[in-house]
Amino acid sequence: MKKLIDAPSEVLADALKGVAAAHPELAVDLAARVVARATPKPGKVALISGGGSGHEPLHSGFVGPGMLDAACAGEVFTSPTPDQMLAAAQTVSTGAGALFIVKNYTGDVLNFEMAAELADAEGIAVKTVLVADDVAVEDSTWTAGRRGVGTTVLVEKIAGAAAEEGADLDAVHAVATRVSENGRSMGVALTSATLPSVGKPSFDLPEDEIEMGVGIHGEPGRTRAPLASASEIAETLVSAILADHDFTGAPVIAMLSGLGGTPLIELYLMYGAVASLLEQRGITVARVLVGDYITSLDMAGCSLTLLRADDEMLRLWDAPVSTAALRWGV
Amino acid sequence: MKKLIDAPSEVLADALKGVAAAHPELAVDLAARVVARATPKPGKVALISGGGSGHEPLHSGFVGPGMLDAACAGEVFTSPTPDQMLAAAQTVSTGAGALFIVKNYTGDVLNFEMAAELADAEGIAVKTVLVADDVAVEDSTWTAGRRGVGTTVLVEKIAGAAAEEGADLDAVHAVATRVSENGRSMGVALTSATLPSVGKPSFDLPEDEIEMGVGIHGEPGRTRAPLASASEIAETLVSAILADHDFTGAPVIAMLSGLGGTPLIELYLMYGAVASLLEQRGITVARVLVGDYITSLDMAGCSLTLLRADDEMLRLWDAPVSTAALRWGV
Repeated sequence: MKKLIDAPSEVLADALKGVAAAHPELAVDLAARVVARATPKPGKVALISGGGSGHEPLHSGFVGPGMLDAACAGEVFTSPTPDQMLAAAQTVSTGAGALFIVKNYTGDVLNFEMAAELADAEGIAVKTVLVADDVAVEDSTWTAGRRGVGTTVLVEKIAGAAAEEGADLDAVHAVATRVSENGRSMGVALTSATLPSVGKPSFDLPEDEIEMGVGIHGEPGRTRAPLASASEIAETLVSAILADHDFTGAPVIAMLSGLGGTPLIELYLMYGAVASLLEQRGITVARVLVGDYITSLDMAGCSLTLLRADDEMLRLWDAPVSTAALRWGV
Repeated sequence: MKKLIDAPSEVLADALKGVAAAHPELAVDLAARVVARATPKPGKVALISGGGSGHEPLHSGFVGPGMLDAACAGEVFTSPTPDQMLAAAQTVSTGAGALFIVKNYTGDVLNFEMAAELADAEGIAVKTVLVADDVAVEDSTWTAGRRGVGTTVLVEKIAGAAAEEGADLDAVHAVATRVSENGRSMGVALTSATLPSVGKPSFDLPEDEIEMGVGIHGEPGRTRAPLASASEIAETLVSAILADHDFTGAPVIAMLSGLGGTPLIELYLMYGAVASLLEQRGITVARVLVGDYITSLDMAGCSLTLLRADDEMLRLWDAPVSTAALRWGV
């Protein structure tokens, strides 16, 4: 295993120290493993997410004005605990309630549910939006139902903008739910990720094969397929997503995210192939992100996320955001 | 070779199609392989850079208001041609002259020199700033003198801000030169990159070794060293850079860039180690970038760049910028 790390057991703690050093605008609680805005905004609905680490910039890279108020970092590929989520809620809630943004993995769902009960007992009103957007498989290694992946980024941005401009908890929850319901994703792995604590690839992927529909923890996808061209892979991803939801007749937000080990030149190439297919099928892409947004450690590959947006979502998408990984308008 | 590509010979052309599809605010000339602002700003000094591809987001990801006016993309790890540079100058020059920002590699230097002569013959005044900031080695595979690496990003941002606010060619050249002279970098490779046209790693790096001071094309560095911890690598990089230039008593801009195959969690961890060492040595870091800014295809590893800044450079650093890879204030 070749990684820029010290002790494998301390990767999360050490990475959070780096986040703290690089971002004085964030309050990094190294004990609770919560990354929060240094200055909570009074009267605003608090947006809180979190999950296993190893998917950076998700979620800590999306904390800041216009997006999340706090992110709870679990160990690599492991849900954070209810205590962390409660600590986050206590830190950033200012009386207007909190929205938990939860990716659909059994551990995350249970822990955020427990945290919501704990927060409620402390007088913090909590609503939850669940993201389950991965069209690859219906149930998976760590999920009942679909896995939650790239649409999470879009929920965090759009609901974050709504909260920032003063929408109340019901309204923020409503728009978050609308984004969650209208986003679909699918990914492909060219290589396995290697967990620091394990020291070898999580699964075996021969030099001439890829995993179509891989999960962000290396969960099996739809098929183990022969190595294919970018255009062929784009065709598979686009077809699977379009077969699952109607993206015609509405503005679409597209995100092509690297999985951590794939360079930007390949991601742009891949997006070119995706854009061409979408155009052929009459889909209007209104906004685009290409880069690393939801990753799986050092896995090579990418995921495609499409959101069937509407004018309100586009307006909130364009609203100012100032986080480590997404920044515009401020 | 596992990459998200179609024909290996068409990687650059296909990637540029993706850039065009993702960024309607850019004018991508697929024939000349020039990425330019769609709308040049009249009366502004034109900033033009370029180099071999494979280092994305450098340079095309830095085209936009507040940074470059145009970037010339060579084939992977190959200098663009004088014709491309001339085409770029003709496209974005509006009468106030052009600054060429050139990384110190023999091919780039010769081609930009020839392009400057061609531009001059067309009535476009050109000045050039050369970046040669890599402290690892004095001469290298493709250089006389030091290689030009990460400081290039800082030159493009700071000189870009000066040009945007109306500084003339002499003034833009002067601040670009000051940045170039006060920036230092060094990198480390954990793995080799694989060129699409070659299909196998450029050099052999055993599982228990790293290349300290590697170049962004895989050029040999200072030493082939045993695999080391992030803290040990940080110590080597920081010591080499601080031994080469005085970074005390001035605000420092730090950039920790991934080389393309290293995930963000490791980059933040690495930055934490760097920040701790800089603090111990009395260096004041005023601004920080952590992420992929100058890469080497899918190489795993990172590079550290430090700039001894001054108040003027900081002011220009903070000025609005709106490019694919750096965006704030707008």
